[in-house]
Amino acid sequence: MSETPDDHSIDGRSRNQTSEDARVARTRADVSAAALEVLTTEGWDAVTHATVARVAGYSKTTLYTHWPSRVDLLGLALDVLGEMPHHTPTGDLRADLIGEMTVFRDAMLALRLDRILLALAHWGAAEDEIARVRSRLVADGESVVREVLGRTAQGTRLDAAVAMFSGAVVCPVLMHGRAPTDEVVAAAVDIVLHGVAPD
Amino acid sequence: MSETPDDHSIDGRSRNQTSEDARVARTRADVSAAALEVLTTEGWDAVTHATVARVAGYSKTTLYTHWPSRVDLLGLALDVLGEMPHHTPTGDLRADLIGEMTVFRDAMLALRLDRILLALAHWGAAEDEIARVRSRLVADGESVVREVLGRTAQGTRLDAAVAMFSGAVVCPVLMHGRAPTDEVVAAAVDIVLHGVAPD
Repeated sequence: MSETPDDHSIDGRSRNQTSEDARVARTRADVSAAALEVLTTEGWDAVTHATVARVAGYSKTTLYTHWPSRVDLLGLALDVLGEMPHHTPTGDLRADLIGEMTVFRDAMLALRLDRILLALAHWGAAEDEIARVRSRLVADGESVVREVLGRTAQGTRLDAAVAMFSGAVVCPVLMHGRAPTDEVVAAAVDIVLHGVAPD
Repeated sequence: MSETPDDHSIDGRSRNQTSEDARVARTRADVSAAALEVLTTEGWDAVTHATVARVAGYSKTTLYTHWPSRVDLLGLALDVLGEMPHHTPTGDLRADLIGEMTVFRDAMLALRLDRILLALAHWGAAEDEIARVRSRLVADGESVVREVLGRTAQGTRLDAAVAMFSGAVVCPVLMHGRAPTDEVVAAAVDIVLHGVAPD
């Protein structure tokens, strides 16, 4: 039952199928990019079939046919989000932690990770598929700080330190509407480093 | 032009006005309670005029007439939220911080503060009125830990420590979908206490 690629290219029906696949893939890419754009510029509340269809330049009917729920649109946006930005560790513990926290803070503002995080938090609690994407993105986001802090803390202390490290950026943004200053970032790193150091 | 209370009670038109005011106040209380119930049981996405009207037992038209936007409904829900629960400090620094973080963690689950926080974070970024309510609730929420930690840290270090303290609860819930264990709470408190202690 298998066909070689040549069978596809010389058979009329297969060629149509290939063309159809390409069209669907292009639609998917366009709609995914539009969904991410709406999510990051306007927030989750604006991610509706009507708004995403308008931004992507497709009909609402096309969107509803392929992606019937708003959570489907969120899934598309997350598919094209890519990897989290990171500081490249140099081996200097304090400088690496300040560098990584600064990259995270700047990404909250530049990439609107705050809006992505809000959508992930809301939908990850209810939808298994979004929870899986959230786990992957958070693991990626925490990977560098977990590796760097792992040099001085393990187990429960490492889990607590990683959560506090993220919190030093996330809580000011979500709860106070402002990112931490460079001084607060440095103070947070010093507290964690001092706090996890052996007595 | 002023009237005494007696004028109200013996004048027909004023009595009707009083009755009208009471009716509006009752409607407002019913709708506020319903909006908070929908917000905490289903999350912000479910806080629509249709759903809140159904839960409150009023018509959608009544809701749209008095509170035309979904943000108005959020404002009503926050009005009846009340004060944040707190641990009562005893003077034992470590026990007070663990007690307060435990109350905060338990309230995230029992009062669904996570859902309230998500709505505040989303709408506080766009709506001044919600930003004001958020500031008041966050100041209330942080008041005890700020007072207790203020015994050993000030200024930028205190700001960083308070953000990390909140983050130790908020980040596991929002980013991992699970509240921190008692062990992680204790580890976080020890890291902050050790971290802010003078050299």
